Amino acid sequence: MSFNSFGRIFTVTTWGESHGPALGATVDGCPPGIPLSESMLQPFLDRRAPGRSKMTTQRQEADVVRILSGVFDGRTTGTPIQLMIENTDQRSRDYGDIAQAFRPGHADITYWQKYGIRDYRGGGRSSARETAARVAAGGVARAVLAQLAGSLTITGYMIQMGELTAERARFDLSEIDRNDFFLPDAAAVPAWTDYLTRIRKEQDSVGAIVEVLIRGTPPGLGAPVYAKLDTDLAAAMMSINAVKGVEIGEGMAAGRLRGTDNADEIRMGPNGPEYLSNHAGGILGGISTGQDIVVRFSVKPTSSILTPRRSIDQSGAEIEVVTKGRHDPCVGIRAVPVAEAMAACVLLDHLLLDRAQTGGVRGRIG
Amino acid sequence: MSFNSFGRIFTVTTWGESHGPALGATVDGCPPGIPLSESMLQPFLDRRAPGRSKMTTQRQEADVVRILSGVFDGRTTGTPIQLMIENTDQRSRDYGDIAQAFRPGHADITYWQKYGIRDYRGGGRSSARETAARVAAGGVARAVLAQLAGSLTITGYMIQMGELTAERARFDLSEIDRNDFFLPDAAAVPAWTDYLTRIRKEQDSVGAIVEVLIRGTPPGLGAPVYAKLDTDLAAAMMSINAVKGVEIGEGMAAGRLRGTDNADEIRMGPNGPEYLSNHAGGILGGISTGQDIVVRFSVKPTSSILTPRRSIDQSGAEIEVVTKGRHDPCVGIRAVPVAEAMAACVLLDHLLLDRAQTGGVRGRIG
Amino acid sequence: MSFNSFGRIFTVTTWGESHGPALGATVDGCPPGIPLSESMLQPFLDRRAPGRSKMTTQRQEADVVRILSGVFDGRTTGTPIQLMIENTDQRSRDYGDIAQAFRPGHADITYWQKYGIRDYRGGGRSSARETAARVAAGGVARAVLAQLAGSLTITGYMIQMGELTAERARFDLSEIDRNDFFLPDAAAVPAWTDYLTRIRKEQDSVGAIVEVLIRGTPPGLGAPVYAKLDTDLAAAMMSINAVKGVEIGEGMAAGRLRGTDNADEIRMGPNGPEYLSNHAGGILGGISTGQDIVVRFSVKPTSSILTPRRSIDQSGAEIEVVTKGRHDPCVGIRAVPVAEAMAACVLLDHLLLDRAQTGGVRGRIG
Amino acid sequence: MSFNSFGRIFTVTTWGESHGPALGATVDGCPPGIPLSESMLQPFLDRRAPGRSKMTTQRQEADVVRILSGVFDGRTTGTPIQLMIENTDQRSRDYGDIAQAFRPGHADITYWQKYGIRDYRGGGRSSARETAARVAAGGVARAVLAQLAGSLTITGYMIQMGELTAERARFDLSEIDRNDFFLPDAAAVPAWTDYLTRIRKEQDSVGAIVEVLIRGTPPGLGAPVYAKLDTDLAAAMMSINAVKGVEIGEGMAAGRLRGTDNADEIRMGPNGPEYLSNHAGGILGGISTGQDIVVRFSVKPTSSILTPRRSIDQSGAEIEVVTKGRHDPCVGIRAVPVAEAMAACVLLDHLLLDRAQTGGVRGRIG
Repeated sequence: MSFNSFGRIFTVTTWGESHGPALGATVDGCPPGIPLSESMLQPFLDRRAPGRSKMTTQRQEADVVRILSGVFDGRTTGTPIQLMIENTDQRSRDYGDIAQAFRPGHADITYWQKYGIRDYRGGGRSSARETAARVAAGGVARAVLAQLAGSLTITGYMIQMGELTAERARFDLSEIDRNDFFLPDAAAVPAWTDYLTRIRKEQDSVGAIVEVLIRGTPPGLGAPVYAKLDTDLAAAMMSINAVKGVEIGEGMAAGRLRGTDNADEIRMGPNGPEYLSNHAGGILGGISTGQDIVVRFSVKPTSSILTPRRSIDQSGAEIEVVTKGRHDPCVGIRAVPVAEAMAACVLLDHLLLDRAQTGGVRGRIG
Repeated sequence: MSFNSFGRIFTVTTWGESHGPALGATVDGCPPGIPLSESMLQPFLDRRAPGRSKMTTQRQEADVVRILSGVFDGRTTGTPIQLMIENTDQRSRDYGDIAQAFRPGHADITYWQKYGIRDYRGGGRSSARETAARVAAGGVARAVLAQLAGSLTITGYMIQMGELTAERARFDLSEIDRNDFFLPDAAAVPAWTDYLTRIRKEQDSVGAIVEVLIRGTPPGLGAPVYAKLDTDLAAAMMSINAVKGVEIGEGMAAGRLRGTDNADEIRMGPNGPEYLSNHAGGILGGISTGQDIVVRFSVKPTSSILTPRRSIDQSGAEIEVVTKGRHDPCVGIRAVPVAEAMAACVLLDHLLLDRAQTGGVRGRIG
Repeated sequence: MSFNSFGRIFTVTTWGESHGPALGATVDGCPPGIPLSESMLQPFLDRRAPGRSKMTTQRQEADVVRILSGVFDGRTTGTPIQLMIENTDQRSRDYGDIAQAFRPGHADITYWQKYGIRDYRGGGRSSARETAARVAAGGVARAVLAQLAGSLTITGYMIQMGELTAERARFDLSEIDRNDFFLPDAAAVPAWTDYLTRIRKEQDSVGAIVEVLIRGTPPGLGAPVYAKLDTDLAAAMMSINAVKGVEIGEGMAAGRLRGTDNADEIRMGPNGPEYLSNHAGGILGGISTGQDIVVRFSVKPTSSILTPRRSIDQSGAEIEVVTKGRHDPCVGIRAVPVAEAMAACVLLDHLLLDRAQTGGVRGRIG
Repeated sequence: MSFNSFGRIFTVTTWGESHGPALGATVDGCPPGIPLSESMLQPFLDRRAPGRSKMTTQRQEADVVRILSGVFDGRTTGTPIQLMIENTDQRSRDYGDIAQAFRPGHADITYWQKYGIRDYRGGGRSSARETAARVAAGGVARAVLAQLAGSLTITGYMIQMGELTAERARFDLSEIDRNDFFLPDAAAVPAWTDYLTRIRKEQDSVGAIVEVLIRGTPPGLGAPVYAKLDTDLAAAMMSINAVKGVEIGEGMAAGRLRGTDNADEIRMGPNGPEYLSNHAGGILGGISTGQDIVVRFSVKPTSSILTPRRSIDQSGAEIEVVTKGRHDPCVGIRAVPVAEAMAACVLLDHLLLDRAQTGGVRGRIG
């Protein structure tokens, strides 16, 4: 498995730097005959694109995706799909003064130490722009899922930003796309807006927690040990820039629970097993139960801030770093469509893997 | 990559069920010439073995590991190392009455739905016994790390069990192996003992949080995007039975932080960069900084408990399930040596991967 | 992908040395619910086993295979199948005098140079005994193919041994198991017997060419570029000890042909396309046509011979090497069941891969 | 491993169809700090490009390669290198009349059967144009090899074209680039020219045999069983369009040899082992000996010819097919630079793999 790929059957390899001519994703293993066009992918990219509101970076990127291969007469052919996004707004002059400096909390220093060379412009490969390629690939995965698992839906949203927590009692998923935060809690939007505006003015940034809810997954996806569905989801989320923690179902809180509370009891419903709770987050023993799959992850605050921080440069000199340029005050916001895309890729990959091994047959209950 | 393997160069494939004749691990990609013997591996297995204290399952398994291949004249040959552990205490009669039943919170139902067949004895492949094979493989990884990265240490310990939290101010790593909980907080041991004894008497179980501290990792291990060191560590931990959340450094708490707080400032020390804090948990942009790597994960409470829970069986009948047999009241305890083993495998794998791509050369600072 | 594994979904990892305690194969990705028992595998091992006739090595190995995992109540569970063969006749004293010597034409010198250590007893990992594990794994693959592609048959046989060539006009596949050469040309058996007896008496060995005929493959297995069915078959055969060339259909002779001759013309038959010839050997563009798949490979003569050859030892001293021990005068003979096993694994793997990507749907003709 | 990738550390994924907007290769795992530019890759593409002489297709493609990522300030960064070649001469109207027809000997029918859809323009993904991407990737591999194994050379050439065989006694590798056939036998060029001109006038095509000679490989590259150097070379060559057979060293002729002849005797030279012959083709037990590595493969005659052949179309109707368009009368010629590229990728991959496992240390002799 290469360094820049994920997936087992439906594989995605992303490439490209923030300020190179282009970036993209090579998608292999896609089933044939699936309707696909650039216009089906673009809306996903638009949701992630920078410059859409005051809440995200002011870098203006059209993020127009082109399909260079693997689609013929509007349908996938089963051969690799190349998705290319050209970089159009590459103001690399902004980065000149940090070419030799290492921003604290940023990949600058580790890239340098590992490779002895790095494209410092806009963070190069470590830029959040890399996630545009993931979103494009996720759009392909969604197009396939629409054919193979029509009732499956994937919905990401913010549940926390710094000190602010969304109120689950008020959640309405239809609100998510009506505000700048992908927030299902409409009543909280004004407070979140004020809070992030203040953070920005203070030349600071803030972390976030994102949740992805996957509904309609058939039972039986995943595997018992290392190719667990939750293992692959955790890896997918942890691979997103700035993510520091991943939870399935109860997540870290499972450490406080008792077995009597945690066990999701089961009754028999008209269409099969029904669970009386979902502490497991839809996955038992690495395999989907058919319940809602619930994945959460934290995103650390952007390390590129205007407030000076102590650091060093390549020569070993001690310096103060201020990161100019156009950065997200809360990079977690734009992680929402990225996480949905990663989830789509993982779910599809496991659907294909399961089809490979079991042919999709299921053990009967009742 | 197969369903039951992990690793990219140093690969581990585990096999075997709880009540079959044996289980084990096939370790491939091990460097040649490394001193290795069964007596070097056995102590790791003994730490994980059941029946060692009242705090764990009373199943008595010798867990004796045999090296069937890949070692000659006391050194590894570079060919696959087969590690076999024979099952000796297979009281499968305990499981007869749950052959058709699905324990709530357990893999029973998903295995059945996916495969239409399962070895129900002792949980079969989903048994915590599978982790014995991981521990053996981890012992091999440690033997290699001792040669290639002599100063690297990997230490796991409990930091939480149900409602009880260890006190970091009292942590003394030398205490870990002096109590039944792998607890670095000696003063807490009596309370933890009482608490778990009570849980057990109440025919219940309880969750836990485990932390793994990796010291002495050279900077430069990992990769920028999908083969990140933190991604692979997260996947490794999430693949352990009953794990529901994984954190690196600040983990989920990163969602509350501000950028000014989170950025680990850097100064120049006599031997290179020195960090003034470690919110990152030793990994930036997927690559090790050289600081302590800090990984935490939660373990849900054992679902096999003596308190009756509502469930169904294969026929769809609604039943009450009581899991007899000999189960851990807190399976998180024995997850400690497992997590250390997984961390050792991941670190070694990345050491070899880095050697492949960069030849171990490092960008100079200063 | 590890060094000792092959396959993408149905993966096989072999382990073990000639004179260690045991060797075997870890088979992962096997579909669940497939009837499997040791008695189904043993006949394949018996066909490969040494000591069965004067035409093969006199080493006596029972080659009894044990299934240690992955099978429950007589059916596969979808979890890893561990196949172990214990070594019982390990006369390692025969090898003492070559511990420091490098046999010409043998892996001795390259193993030493690469690893700086090798198990010299019986060739260690480079022994033909490793192929016993492949044969066991191939038996598993056949058991699955019997369920998923019932009409598919895999038949290997010798077509050449040194200067002797079998006569295709006399081929009768039912003769293959009636002689010591897996020879479909019954009339040639006496001459082959005399020839090989003479070779052996002359303390020499001889090469061979083996052909594998696969009938009943559905059209559509394979992939266009690197995961071609012929690529994977070629790799599988080339990975067998001592193999130096692999051909599909016309093989090397395709270099002499004209396009007008080589194109297999197509007519429409009652059940779909029918081909008027099979120069392609059943594979076009990496994908099966449904015709007979024809794979051929050469096996070099055993390098372990009693005739002295000039060589060196580890100290660099120039020596003459005579390999005592019990060696096959024509190791190609026992490669026949090995090749069948490899073909079975590759075909099954591609059947599962195809099921993953296309769901087994086929473009209609007519 | 994805369907369109090869390699283990240095991985190459090609994408694109003959008549889409572009094609290319995504190269991952490349060591950092290697000087690389488009001008270093272009000469390799120019050697493979169509339309260079009357001996190849008259399709005019500039085959200009662009590096879209992974290179900064003229050196590789260790991140994915995207190599894109835009298609400029896409006369797809030539293919309109074969959209529903299946050319005999071509991938048309198997692609249709497998996927139920295919880009019929110019063969789509099965076009020899795909190999341009391989050549670009091979150029990257060569740039790395120049740094890591400076004395290693890779030279491909034709040794047979239909009935004509080159004369080894006259071989002069410096002649290879002085004729239209990559022929090291200058005296044969006029006869080869006449022969191929005649084939073309007869509206036919012809097969070929290509040899690749790799000099200066260090001993110790490869692995004992499935990741053998010869296995990976065989797979690499067999994955090239139209290849039907692959040989290492003696190849298929090894089947005729005796052990006394085949064993390459060894003497001790001033710089280590010296071999008195090279029947093995530079590889023993899957690992390089340090001798010349010799790989040969056959290329079948182009199936796209102007002479009518009987076939069927998608409706099942029986038809006669004549393939207009611009096709190579001997596609084997342009396979020469492709084979060199594949060899470069395989050698580099094994160099990195060996560095991963052994750190490049070697067992001493003498």
